[in-house]
Amino acid sequence: MTCDVFAIANVGVQGLHPYQPGKPIEELQRELGLDSVVKLASNENPLGPSSLAAAAAQASLKQLHLYPDASGFELKNKLAEKLSVGVDQFTLGNGSNDVLDLIARTFLSAGSSAVFSQYAFIVYPIAVQAVGARAIITPAKDWGHDLDAMAAAIEADTKVVFIANPNNPTGNYLNRDALAAFLAKVPEHVIVVLDEAYIEYAEVDDFPDGLTFLAEYSNVIVTRTFSKAYGLAGLRIGYGVSSPQIADLLNRVRAPFNVSIPAMSAALAVLDDHDYLRRSQQVNSAGVKQLCAGFDDLGLPYIPSMGNFVAVELPCDAMPVYQALLQKGVIVRPVGVYQMPKHLRVSVGLEQENMRFLAALKNLINEGCFDK
Amino acid sequence: MTCDVFAIANVGVQGLHPYQPGKPIEELQRELGLDSVVKLASNENPLGPSSLAAAAAQASLKQLHLYPDASGFELKNKLAEKLSVGVDQFTLGNGSNDVLDLIARTFLSAGSSAVFSQYAFIVYPIAVQAVGARAIITPAKDWGHDLDAMAAAIEADTKVVFIANPNNPTGNYLNRDALAAFLAKVPEHVIVVLDEAYIEYAEVDDFPDGLTFLAEYSNVIVTRTFSKAYGLAGLRIGYGVSSPQIADLLNRVRAPFNVSIPAMSAALAVLDDHDYLRRSQQVNSAGVKQLCAGFDDLGLPYIPSMGNFVAVELPCDAMPVYQALLQKGVIVRPVGVYQMPKHLRVSVGLEQENMRFLAALKNLINEGCFDK
Repeated sequence: MTCDVFAIANVGVQGLHPYQPGKPIEELQRELGLDSVVKLASNENPLGPSSLAAAAAQASLKQLHLYPDASGFELKNKLAEKLSVGVDQFTLGNGSNDVLDLIARTFLSAGSSAVFSQYAFIVYPIAVQAVGARAIITPAKDWGHDLDAMAAAIEADTKVVFIANPNNPTGNYLNRDALAAFLAKVPEHVIVVLDEAYIEYAEVDDFPDGLTFLAEYSNVIVTRTFSKAYGLAGLRIGYGVSSPQIADLLNRVRAPFNVSIPAMSAALAVLDDHDYLRRSQQVNSAGVKQLCAGFDDLGLPYIPSMGNFVAVELPCDAMPVYQALLQKGVIVRPVGVYQMPKHLRVSVGLEQENMRFLAALKNLINEGCFDK
Repeated sequence: MTCDVFAIANVGVQGLHPYQPGKPIEELQRELGLDSVVKLASNENPLGPSSLAAAAAQASLKQLHLYPDASGFELKNKLAEKLSVGVDQFTLGNGSNDVLDLIARTFLSAGSSAVFSQYAFIVYPIAVQAVGARAIITPAKDWGHDLDAMAAAIEADTKVVFIANPNNPTGNYLNRDALAAFLAKVPEHVIVVLDEAYIEYAEVDDFPDGLTFLAEYSNVIVTRTFSKAYGLAGLRIGYGVSSPQIADLLNRVRAPFNVSIPAMSAALAVLDDHDYLRRSQQVNSAGVKQLCAGFDDLGLPYIPSMGNFVAVELPCDAMPVYQALLQKGVIVRPVGVYQMPKHLRVSVGLEQENMRFLAALKNLINEGCFDK
C-alpha cells in the first residue's frame, strides 16, 4: 500500500525519536577481540544481584505459567509498612519509567503542558512528547534544577512538574528547604513528581525524603525504583507513592499485570537484604570519592553527585573520547542527547573498574586525545 | 488540599473503571478452609512451566542487576527466523497487552475512533478509553465478530480495528476467507490488529495465520503472546509483527526496557521446547472435548472454542453459580463484565481438574442451584 503510516500516527508520536540502544558488552568484546570489558554506562549496581533477591526470584519460577497478582498485595503491604504510608497510595510499575509514563498518560494530553528542567532525566521529555503535550523546559542553574524558574514557568495549562532528586545525568540535588519552598508555591491542581530513583545513594543530611511532603501536599507523587541501589534493573520494578486518589487514577491506566512474578518476589526479598543495601551504599560512596579524586588529579571538572555516577567535563567534544575509551574496553555514557556535549557520565563501578577507567582516561590525555 | 484530582485527569482516564483483581487461590483456601482448590479462571497453561524455559530464566538471574537488552536483539532474530519475517517488523511487549496499549497510544487519541466487536477481549475498550478515543462496538453474530458489520462501522475518523482470533472470552474464530474478504474492504489508512493470543490452540484447517496477510496488507498488526500455549504468563512477554514502518512507530512509544531479562531468556528457550508446545496443545484439545462432552451431558449449551477455555451458558444468572462453585473449591470466570451474565468461562485444566469442575457443576444442578 502507498499509505504513509507516519502521517496517521498521533502528532506527539510523530515527534518521538527512535530509541538508540547502547552497545552490549558482548558486541564490543567481539568487535575488538578484548578479553575483558568494563561497562560503567548504565548506572547499574556493580555488586551484582542480592543473593536473597536472586534466590527469591528463582523460587518464584515454579509459578511462571501463572499470571502475577494484579494487585501486588504482598509487596504493597510490605512497602506500606516500611514507608509508613497506606497500601492504597501505591502504583507498581514495570520499572519507575512505567510509573512516569502512567503519570503522563493520566494527566497530560494535547491540550496541556509539563514543566521540567534542562539536563533533567530524558524520560520526561519522551513521556510528555508521546502524549502530545507541550514541554516547558527551564534553563538549569549550575547544571541543576532552578526551582524559582520552574515555579515561574507554570502556565494555566500546566498539569505536571517533573523533578529528579538526585537528578540523572548530572547527579546534583535539591535540599529540603528548597523543595519545601517550591511546593508551597505550586498551585494545588498541578501534580509535582519527585523522581527519587537514586535517593538511597544520597548521603547529605539536608536531602529531603519526598514522602514527608505527602501529608501536606496531596499533589505530590514520589517515584522510586528497585533498579539502582537494590540491584534489580533486569527484572523491571519500581513504584509511585501518592495520595490514594492519584494512585486510584494511575492504577486505572496501569495494565493489571505490568509487574512480573519474579520481579515482585525479588523486590520483597531485597527489602529484607539490609546488608546488600548497606554494601551498595558503601561501595558507591567510596567509588564516587575515587572517581572525583581521579578527576581532580587529571584537572577535570565534574558535577558533585548524589547518584551512582559522576558527570565529568572534558576540555573537548566528548564523543571522540568515548570512542577512544571503547577501544580500550571501557564503556561510559556520552550525554550529547542531554545537550551536554563535553560531558561523559561515568557510573560508579567496583574499585578495580573505576581504576581501569581512570587509567584509560589518563592514557588518552597522555596520548593527546583531548587536543584533537 | 481541596482540589479534585479526578477533575484534572484526562477525560478518557476519568471514564476508566478501577481494575477488579480475581480471587487468589490462597485467599479462597484460607477463607473456606479447603485443602485443595482448582483454578480454571485465567486461561493459564495447566502443565506448569516448560522446564527448558524455567532453566533459562533461572540461568539469567545472575544478570538481574543489569538492564535488559533494549533492542531485544536475540529474541527478535530468533522469532524472525521462525516466522520468516524481518527483524525490523517486531515490537516486543510486557505481555501482548502492552503491545495493544502501544497501538492505541500510537494511533488513537481524543479525535479518533476504534472499531471492535461486542464480546471481544476487554483490553480493547480499556485501551481505547484510556487515550480518550471513541469506541465503535458492533453487535456480535452468533457470539462472534460480524465482519460485515465491522467493515460498515468504519468511519472517517476510525484509525484502528481490533479483531481477536480466536476471541476471548467466547472462543470462536474467523476463517481465512472471511478475514481475507474483510481486509480487502478496509481502507489502507485504517490499522487492523489481529490479536492471536490463542492461535497455537486453533486446530481447524481453515484457521488463518495472520502473518500471511502482512505481505499484501501493510496496515495489519499481528499480536501474539507467550502467556498461553508457551506457559510464561508470570514473566510478561508478547510481541507484535507488522510492517517495519508501523514497528518503528510502536517502538518509539515503547519504554526501552519494557521486557525483563528472564522473560526474554525464557521466551528464547521455550521456542525450542517443541515437546512442551505439543503437550500444551494435546492437553488442551483433550480438555476442550472433555468439558464439551460434560456440558452436553448436563444439557448446557456452550460456544465452540478454539481457545484454552469454553464459555458455557447457564439457564440462570451465572453469579450465584460462580459463588457456589467457589464454595466447592473451584474458581472459574463469570463474564458479566462482557455483558454475558448467563455464561461462565471455564479454562481448560488437566483431566482431573476438569472432572472436578464438571462434578461440582453437576452437584449444583442436583442441589437445585439453577432453579433459584
